[in-house]
Amino acid sequence: MTLVAPLLLLTTTLPLFIARSLDAQTIQSPEVHPDRTVTFRLLMPLAQKAEVHVDDISGMTTITMTKDSSGVWSATTTALTPDIYAYQFAVDGQDILDPNVRAYVSNHFRQGGLLTVPGSPAAIWEQKEVPHGAVSRHFFSSKITGDQRDYYVYLPPEFDPRSRKTYPVLYLLHGYSDYTDGWIAMGRANFILDNLIAQGKAKPMIVVMPSGYSVPALLDKGWAAPQTPLWRLNVERFPDMLLEELIPLVEGGYPVQRDRNSRAIAGLSMGGGEAVYTGLNHIDRFAWIAPMSAAVPDDLAHAFPKLNANQGSKIRLLWIACGKQDFLYEENRNFKAWLTLQGIPFTSVETEGAHTWPVWRRNLADLLPVLFR
Amino acid sequence: MTLVAPLLLLTTTLPLFIARSLDAQTIQSPEVHPDRTVTFRLLMPLAQKAEVHVDDISGMTTITMTKDSSGVWSATTTALTPDIYAYQFAVDGQDILDPNVRAYVSNHFRQGGLLTVPGSPAAIWEQKEVPHGAVSRHFFSSKITGDQRDYYVYLPPEFDPRSRKTYPVLYLLHGYSDYTDGWIAMGRANFILDNLIAQGKAKPMIVVMPSGYSVPALLDKGWAAPQTPLWRLNVERFPDMLLEELIPLVEGGYPVQRDRNSRAIAGLSMGGGEAVYTGLNHIDRFAWIAPMSAAVPDDLAHAFPKLNANQGSKIRLLWIACGKQDFLYEENRNFKAWLTLQGIPFTSVETEGAHTWPVWRRNLADLLPVLFR
Repeated sequence: MTLVAPLLLLTTTLPLFIARSLDAQTIQSPEVHPDRTVTFRLLMPLAQKAEVHVDDISGMTTITMTKDSSGVWSATTTALTPDIYAYQFAVDGQDILDPNVRAYVSNHFRQGGLLTVPGSPAAIWEQKEVPHGAVSRHFFSSKITGDQRDYYVYLPPEFDPRSRKTYPVLYLLHGYSDYTDGWIAMGRANFILDNLIAQGKAKPMIVVMPSGYSVPALLDKGWAAPQTPLWRLNVERFPDMLLEELIPLVEGGYPVQRDRNSRAIAGLSMGGGEAVYTGLNHIDRFAWIAPMSAAVPDDLAHAFPKLNANQGSKIRLLWIACGKQDFLYEENRNFKAWLTLQGIPFTSVETEGAHTWPVWRRNLADLLPVLFR
Repeated sequence: MTLVAPLLLLTTTLPLFIARSLDAQTIQSPEVHPDRTVTFRLLMPLAQKAEVHVDDISGMTTITMTKDSSGVWSATTTALTPDIYAYQFAVDGQDILDPNVRAYVSNHFRQGGLLTVPGSPAAIWEQKEVPHGAVSRHFFSSKITGDQRDYYVYLPPEFDPRSRKTYPVLYLLHGYSDYTDGWIAMGRANFILDNLIAQGKAKPMIVVMPSGYSVPALLDKGWAAPQTPLWRLNVERFPDMLLEELIPLVEGGYPVQRDRNSRAIAGLSMGGGEAVYTGLNHIDRFAWIAPMSAAVPDDLAHAFPKLNANQGSKIRLLWIACGKQDFLYEENRNFKAWLTLQGIPFTSVETEGAHTWPVWRRNLADLLPVLFR
């Protein structure tokens, strides 16, 4: 290839992004410093006000940015806990994605940059020098939901298609507004599993991550979806799709163990609601049930008509996690009080944190070691 | 779940993105109309000037936006050819990602929204009601490149791990600045294959998409990488990684045919350079070689010291595609002139278009039907 100087590139018919990116590359943002402070920068000479909103485990921190004489706005955080942080700029009241960031929030409705403050030693969600499992995306046509849908499958690092070894299986459900791969892209579930398996802390398992939108039109409602009748229909239809269509597909294609003691269901927010609605109504299929920050069903007696102490005694683990700053915290407390009244044993996991990924990554890392034991 | 009103959500510790997105949802952008025109909208009352840059097959089209009394800027295109378009706003000279778009350019350095103008009938890159192949992401540690790296594998829809059927294999290489999954996320290679296989126009095949960064530090150079010595090293190291490490891994894990007539290599831009450098220096391994918009090696006699007419007679297909508006068009013409001098037969595929994904999606759809025939 001829060595083309950048200025020459500008005169060609290159797509706009190459040419237009040359400018922005002089700005480094975000810059993660060795002391775990982070500097954000934004070149916007004409703007009158700029802030950065950082989504941390407890919710949101807003930091005012200041402009220098060259028109670059900047702000530096205090030292941050090792984590993966989402952030957005607000410039004159408008949300703006950092033009220089190179990692992104993955979500149907939200935009944002991502930055990693690394741990020392590395945090459990970081990609380390350990064997890695593969992640596969599959598609199928569902008669129950009336659409084509996808699902992801994590295979443990030791997986060998020629071996006859079988594995326990975790069905892991994303939240509302997540893409199907939310637990991979945002939750880092594959790296958390790789790390825990390498440390001998989690059993090698297969993890199946289905789409949680069993009523596809739900997404058309945007953030108003929980206030529509589709919300409940979506949760109630989920186990039909899972039990009648997806699990047979998975069990036909992968060497998963088929007994209830080797089958778990977990999920966050909407997926937490789907996990308890599915799990507690099908205790014959799932011995391990783990909602996180769950949007639990409204009318519990209606949602779980057959649940009683005898049923409950068959549950190996009902692991109910919620952050104390989560807007669903009270609902989860009410749910646990109701379960106690029905004589259903559970493990209550109350942590610090709001309704956000830093909580759920930690939840998953805490849950996996106790599954299938 | 209690039905929480949006305004109530604002008062909780929900992550910022939920709360902050409520506003923006009143703006629809981009809006693709039935007549294939597209309207872009942006709420920025304080801005003085706004444009939208649309990356089309021929390069870039810039459209001036106008502001209404509510502070919303908008612009509508002429009727567009069915395609997937990347775009960016420029507001007072600064690039801004559309805050309302829900599909994104996937790239190490570039940001942008994506919009699909659907075809009627659907274009070959659209997801249709046909059987879909799975796409798997794998990781391995490379001694040659000194890092952990990933690769993606497409399996044809009919693939059954219990069958003994074997498949021809295409190694398909991304361009500089792409992520490893560029051919999936931007190139829609899996849907193109699904559609062509369903139509009987392409043979069922396995497609392996490796990382093309065999010198990982190359990415640290940003857009200046082609002007550094690392560029040539990166291309020259690629076949070692591919032939010594990745192909043995693939052939150990997947039922691919191992003869040269069943092995192809193709790629775009940097990956086109890697495809010809690897393929033409290893004709004993690859009978099918297909560079697209290739960044071909500088010094051809040095890059291909053993290439001669006798070697060339063994090539089943050398398919050299380049758009007439591509900034690498002249280099590709020079490359073809040099091949003619060496007595190497090739197929020249000159199309309309610049150095951009609309060209490469069409290239792939044109290439696949002639592979392994």
